Amino acid sequence: MSAGWFRRRFLPGEPLPAPRPPGPHASPVPYRRPRFLRGSSSSPGAADASRRPDSRPVRSPARGRTLPWNAGYAEIINAEKSEFNEDQAACGKLCIRRCEFGAEEEWLTLCPEEFLTGHYWALFDGHGGPAAAILAANTLHSCLRRQLEAVVEGLVATQPPMHLNGRCICPSDPQFVEEKGIRAEDLVIGALESAFQECDEVIGRELEASGQMGGCTALVAVSLQGKLYMANAGDSRAILVRRDEIRPLSFEFTPETERQRIQQLAFVYPELLAGEFTRLEFPRRLKGDDLGQKVLFRDHHMSGWSYKRVEKSDLKYPLIHGQGRQARLLGTLAVSRGLGDHQLRVLDTNIQLKPFLLSVPQLELQEDDVVVMATDGLWDVLSNEQVAWLVRSFLPGNQEDPHRFSKLAQMLIHSTQGKEDSLTEEGQVSYDDVSVFVIPLHSQGQESSDH
Amino acid sequence: MSAGWFRRRFLPGEPLPAPRPPGPHASPVPYRRPRFLRGSSSSPGAADASRRPDSRPVRSPARGRTLPWNAGYAEIINAEKSEFNEDQAACGKLCIRRCEFGAEEEWLTLCPEEFLTGHYWALFDGHGGPAAAILAANTLHSCLRRQLEAVVEGLVATQPPMHLNGRCICPSDPQFVEEKGIRAEDLVIGALESAFQECDEVIGRELEASGQMGGCTALVAVSLQGKLYMANAGDSRAILVRRDEIRPLSFEFTPETERQRIQQLAFVYPELLAGEFTRLEFPRRLKGDDLGQKVLFRDHHMSGWSYKRVEKSDLKYPLIHGQGRQARLLGTLAVSRGLGDHQLRVLDTNIQLKPFLLSVPQLELQEDDVVVMATDGLWDVLSNEQVAWLVRSFLPGNQEDPHRFSKLAQMLIHSTQGKEDSLTEEGQVSYDDVSVFVIPLHSQGQESSDH
Repeated sequence: MSAGWFRRRFLPGEPLPAPRPPGPHASPVPYRRPRFLRGSSSSPGAADASRRPDSRPVRSPARGRTLPWNAGYAEIINAEKSEFNEDQAACGKLCIRRCEFGAEEEWLTLCPEEFLTGHYWALFDGHGGPAAAILAANTLHSCLRRQLEAVVEGLVATQPPMHLNGRCICPSDPQFVEEKGIRAEDLVIGALESAFQECDEVIGRELEASGQMGGCTALVAVSLQGKLYMANAGDSRAILVRRDEIRPLSFEFTPETERQRIQQLAFVYPELLAGEFTRLEFPRRLKGDDLGQKVLFRDHHMSGWSYKRVEKSDLKYPLIHGQGRQARLLGTLAVSRGLGDHQLRVLDTNIQLKPFLLSVPQLELQEDDVVVMATDGLWDVLSNEQVAWLVRSFLPGNQEDPHRFSKLAQMLIHSTQGKEDSLTEEGQVSYDDVSVFVIPLHSQGQESSDH
Repeated sequence: MSAGWFRRRFLPGEPLPAPRPPGPHASPVPYRRPRFLRGSSSSPGAADASRRPDSRPVRSPARGRTLPWNAGYAEIINAEKSEFNEDQAACGKLCIRRCEFGAEEEWLTLCPEEFLTGHYWALFDGHGGPAAAILAANTLHSCLRRQLEAVVEGLVATQPPMHLNGRCICPSDPQFVEEKGIRAEDLVIGALESAFQECDEVIGRELEASGQMGGCTALVAVSLQGKLYMANAGDSRAILVRRDEIRPLSFEFTPETERQRIQQLAFVYPELLAGEFTRLEFPRRLKGDDLGQKVLFRDHHMSGWSYKRVEKSDLKYPLIHGQGRQARLLGTLAVSRGLGDHQLRVLDTNIQLKPFLLSVPQLELQEDDVVVMATDGLWDVLSNEQVAWLVRSFLPGNQEDPHRFSKLAQMLIHSTQGKEDSLTEEGQVSYDDVSVFVIPLHSQGQESSDH
């Protein structure tokens, strides 16, 4: 995500409300090695990057860093714009244990052996410092594993039972579940959604306790039982590249794409704006000369536009303002979904961002091919089609190279750094963090089946 | 819409909160001829059904009624389940006049001549009596015409100007409008959205003044400047039939399709449920035996499912309950968008339906082929594919028949009435009102160009 606090552009002469300065971020949380899997070192299937030919962590020749931990079949390359990187990532094996119930229907023991194995990739693009992104990279997979372990009996059933212990209280319970169309996949989706909520709460508590601030986007891919789940909250993006098709696997949540939801909340709860902002959208911020004129506008119930006569209250700063990458929520944030930001307020006011900012991800379920996950630094300068063209050009000639996916990720990064082989128009360069995963679904599927 | 009040199905032994009985509807608003266009009788382009060979109003041989007014190139056939029909319709020419501004920037004169001509088709499926549907059929087109006339200068401009009077206050105003991508089409969409809001307010006032109740869905097609706009609030449906493609032009708004929006509102505003309902969704209503068990559920942030341990508050009646066509909002309504219902409350409580019920339509913009618009009585027993098959089978052999679109509408109705030529599986019969428009876009376009 482009950091709203540091990259905002102003219209000439506009007095802008601004967020609190990122004071506490001057001493950010030091980078910690993700403690990814409890007991994974003793687990026979745990990936050790150094032991596999296809899994060597790659240091980008440009200015990348070596990921301290990864699962081996996908590489992440980070272009780093700052000393303490606001882009954070995590990937690894997801070891889900089976829980057993005792007579009191309480959890008695956790089997030490893994019961289900999945794979996890996650990108977190921080703003207001790296603290939230680091916490998310260290926490979200644990939340997810816990959520999955809590429903694992349902995951492996032909159909999730109405009651987790399998008792049938009402004879037609299986029918109710069937009529609702509830499948094991819905439990994975529910676990991801609940994990995002839980992780958001953890980040809120931890940042408050340590006197820090900030937030981050989250883009998460999980491969489990032969299916890929993509969960997104923010403006990173994942696409699926097939031989003759490119499919977006995520949808960007920005103040612009979520305008109607945000305006609707301000309509229902006008006190959230404390009389400082106008809910209405105009093509530009209005000024005194516009008073009494009929100008283009739209409100929460409109996807189209109409005209209204300008009143004094329309001259307030708009709830959503700016265009494209410059669009901001309450003059502050460039995304409308993500983790953290519990303390974030508009500068010199008591107006909170959080009620407008959701931690609810959007979910996508997918079954094959190559997935490219990247933070906005990539998508700012490369289109989906350009990325797909690079993927399709590179892979067929490098089928035997065990590091081909790492090299492909490197090449994508290079294309954003103004290199000679750059694909971008007029040598466009990204000055934002750039993080990329390239995830080959077929070989990943084969690898999974080894466990 | 299937009327929630009369067709609710209950699970055995369930004590259900129910809406107020439809007492005032015993004497419904008498059917009134739609006063569609002010001065349309003197307008040279006004359609007179009896004057055109292709435009004869059709009385369904089954049990249809003759529409008192229509524009001539589309037919509506109504199967009527009740004496006072809850399905209502309106169609006709939309004559938009040009407004002129005086020195005070007030409207000075309304040109008596039409300036722009469009066409309008609308279906309204009432519940709790026909009153709201009749009001909507008599009112919505006037609201729309008024909204369009208010922005007509923008409609005919190459690009809608920032200021309706064309003055340019800020030199870069055209650039702001261009960057927002605002086109003349967005003004038509905005006018439709505002017309729905305005019509909803009119219905609320009129029903209250006359001591009546009820609501209705609204599905509206507008053809203007060579484009077709489809606006939908409720569970009617419009599809586009092409030679080798079927495309839905609307999306049904029911308690099931809008579950997350409705649960979210109850999460933000728990007092709306007055402690009588639970926000959570379970596969079936829970009972005492479920207490303490872990059962399938989902909350506002989840598209997937998870398990929770059942507490006493989970035994309350669910905010959204039932499956498919039987799903109900607060045990009462089968749709989540529509007009009217301002006074509707859950029986024996003060809980209002309206905060959960939106009058905001979803908009679709389209440019060609054949549109089939129908209320839910048709779609209950015929699939999109079956309707498309009927359209594609019938039209090619009847190219010369000036009444072919009327006959096609009749045939679609017959297929829901258990006729011999019925397409429905196992002779399925619709006992609901059934209303159908068949709108041939190409010939309509030619006709429009005559004016």
